Amino acid sequence: MLIDQMFIPYSFIEKEASHVEGFSPELALVTIGGGKELEEKLVVRPTSETIVNHMFTKWIQSYRDLPLMINQWANVTRWEMRTKPFIRTLEFLWQEGHTAHATLEEAEKEAMQMIDVYTKFAFEQAAIPVIPGRKSKVETFAGANRTYTIEAMMGDRKALQAGTSHNLGQNFSRAFGTQFMDENGQIEHVWQTSWAISTRFVGGIIMTHGDDAGLMLPPRIAPIQVIIVPIWKKGDEKSAVLEAVDSVQKILKEAGIRVKVDDSELRTPGWKFNHYEMKGVPVRIEIGPRDVTNKSVVVSRRDVPGKQGKEFGVSMEPSVLVNHIKGRLEDIQASLLQKAITFRDSNIIDVSSYGELKEAIAEGKWARGPWSASDADELKVKEETSATIRCYPFEQPEGTKKCFMTGNPAEEVAIFAKSY
Amino acid sequence: MLIDQMFIPYSFIEKEASHVEGFSPELALVTIGGGKELEEKLVVRPTSETIVNHMFTKWIQSYRDLPLMINQWANVTRWEMRTKPFIRTLEFLWQEGHTAHATLEEAEKEAMQMIDVYTKFAFEQAAIPVIPGRKSKVETFAGANRTYTIEAMMGDRKALQAGTSHNLGQNFSRAFGTQFMDENGQIEHVWQTSWAISTRFVGGIIMTHGDDAGLMLPPRIAPIQVIIVPIWKKGDEKSAVLEAVDSVQKILKEAGIRVKVDDSELRTPGWKFNHYEMKGVPVRIEIGPRDVTNKSVVVSRRDVPGKQGKEFGVSMEPSVLVNHIKGRLEDIQASLLQKAITFRDSNIIDVSSYGELKEAIAEGKWARGPWSASDADELKVKEETSATIRCYPFEQPEGTKKCFMTGNPAEEVAIFAKSY
Repeated sequence: MLIDQMFIPYSFIEKEASHVEGFSPELALVTIGGGKELEEKLVVRPTSETIVNHMFTKWIQSYRDLPLMINQWANVTRWEMRTKPFIRTLEFLWQEGHTAHATLEEAEKEAMQMIDVYTKFAFEQAAIPVIPGRKSKVETFAGANRTYTIEAMMGDRKALQAGTSHNLGQNFSRAFGTQFMDENGQIEHVWQTSWAISTRFVGGIIMTHGDDAGLMLPPRIAPIQVIIVPIWKKGDEKSAVLEAVDSVQKILKEAGIRVKVDDSELRTPGWKFNHYEMKGVPVRIEIGPRDVTNKSVVVSRRDVPGKQGKEFGVSMEPSVLVNHIKGRLEDIQASLLQKAITFRDSNIIDVSSYGELKEAIAEGKWARGPWSASDADELKVKEETSATIRCYPFEQPEGTKKCFMTGNPAEEVAIFAKSY
Repeated sequence: MLIDQMFIPYSFIEKEASHVEGFSPELALVTIGGGKELEEKLVVRPTSETIVNHMFTKWIQSYRDLPLMINQWANVTRWEMRTKPFIRTLEFLWQEGHTAHATLEEAEKEAMQMIDVYTKFAFEQAAIPVIPGRKSKVETFAGANRTYTIEAMMGDRKALQAGTSHNLGQNFSRAFGTQFMDENGQIEHVWQTSWAISTRFVGGIIMTHGDDAGLMLPPRIAPIQVIIVPIWKKGDEKSAVLEAVDSVQKILKEAGIRVKVDDSELRTPGWKFNHYEMKGVPVRIEIGPRDVTNKSVVVSRRDVPGKQGKEFGVSMEPSVLVNHIKGRLEDIQASLLQKAITFRDSNIIDVSSYGELKEAIAEGKWARGPWSASDADELKVKEETSATIRCYPFEQPEGTKKCFMTGNPAEEVAIFAKSY
């Protein structure tokens, strides 16, 4: 049995009470194998805490074996009634980390560290200004004591839970008997975390930055950062243009820029312009006969449409060209993030009453307000407005607060929104 | 529906007649999803030709779309009665490539090219001297016209099919209607290939090079090429030793060598020696107080046991040390391959009669001999000796040949062996 195993005996899933309660409506079950009805149904993994603990019991004996930290890229399955590409799919690919520690403090530190890693990735690489915070008890992962989350605002202003990190306490280690001998010879249960981001994040990138012309990829994560399209009409122009294209490609490649040339003669330049716009390539370079003569290129930005985003006469001189293109890629990266921040901030409303929350949600916005009401109240908000608590953000306003629902003192503000 | 989808509608599998015949005894079937009995059973993918063709019919219209070549890393499931870690597992991870071409010639070229890629990888990276060749009709992939294979001899002299490449002809494109318009406006079916290697190859590496002390990894693919173990006894020795260890680590890292230091104080040096031997790390460096004084290190080779593999007084001077370690890593890589070639060649017997074949197989060896007999004869050999045709090797002896079974003329020699 391997830790990354896809089939989990049904009895494993049943061991942790809240885990099975949370996941049982979403399971895909293999009941026939090699032509025969199976004695025990197999669950196609929805997440791997149970199989991980099964293995950890074999791998962990002593405090010397801790912390034990693993990460795997795996596909998981959750049976969904309504699916949406990338965002909610029956099967998805994710990275799932699982750790075991000797103390609660270490586990908590790990869980926080990972939500920080995800937050930095979102801001710095994907240009998505997520809001990190803690989930409400109602929204906490089935089997966790605490769930941390990063919440992203999509172009339609719905929230996307884009990554989570869980402090699992000793819930799974008690269910599976994952124990270790500490430095004093005492037998203890390990403290655990798990954390994941998935292909859903790809959907988040599409829906944060994309427009009607297609994808718009932040340069740092774009597989192709620069597409070069050669343009010629007469046969004798071709070799000079292709020679210049080849030289420009080499210059950019050597500078570490991810560049591609599309010199296919089966498609027109106009078709290629649309194609790579749709694919979200941040920068396009056109090189035609006149550019060859002038030793220059035409540079277009994916994020600035039309003439405004087009620069003529950019020199082919290597150091000038490389600096110019690197500068443009950085501009685009920063501009996408700034645009998303502005959009996000103009769509979060501070509310101090349930009426204000309803109004904000009805307008499609996010509502942020002090909250210390009950789980029942939280579910009532969901029923009446379709909005849920996305998180108690880590960044909290100063001063005393009153719960907008009950008027009681509240320690924190929560963010409510409709979500995917 | 995504091309890398894990669940395949049962009706897809049924479309290609020999495909369903070959795979149906090995399928895992999901029959329950989200608590409900499914209307159509889902097959947990055993291989993806069917789903690939389903998508290719949408992606391919014109000769401009060809060749279409995709590769994916995916887990696949085949229900096995008897499993063996890495070698035969219910679920395994593999790389599967799928291509569509405008002509048979192109498809054949692609299939041959990929078996060449696998052969080179085996020799140059994994130090496994595989024998590339063509499968017999009986052993050809269910749905292919031709299967090319690389066959490796394990330490117990059983054969391991370590990678395959298939020329699928138009079998799947006819079953699924995967068509394109050629340059003359004619509608044609595409010509296809598929090819894969899997985690089974990891088993091949273990069983080719490993010994009683554990793994022995070829340096080029070893995740850790050099393990450094610091040794000190008295408290005041520690800082000087760790400083030297740190400096040696930096020197090797900067030279592009994959190096790890184990300075844990929870384990003894002896425990670490055994541990990294078991993990197959090719080179171990020990640094103790005397080495620090002498500005030298002790270097041990995983592949040469005991004192013979141990060199004292190797200088810490960066250029000397780097050259020395790089040289040792190359020696080990070459030596592992040479050892495996010698072992392989001394265990293949040329046979000219069925009696000789039986004798060779009974001795646990591989038998190579001219073969032009029937499929029925091939199955008879299997029944009587447990040996199967591993391949008709690409490298064929010159001259006329007589089938060792029938005495009829034979165009090729085949290799027979027991296999995993």
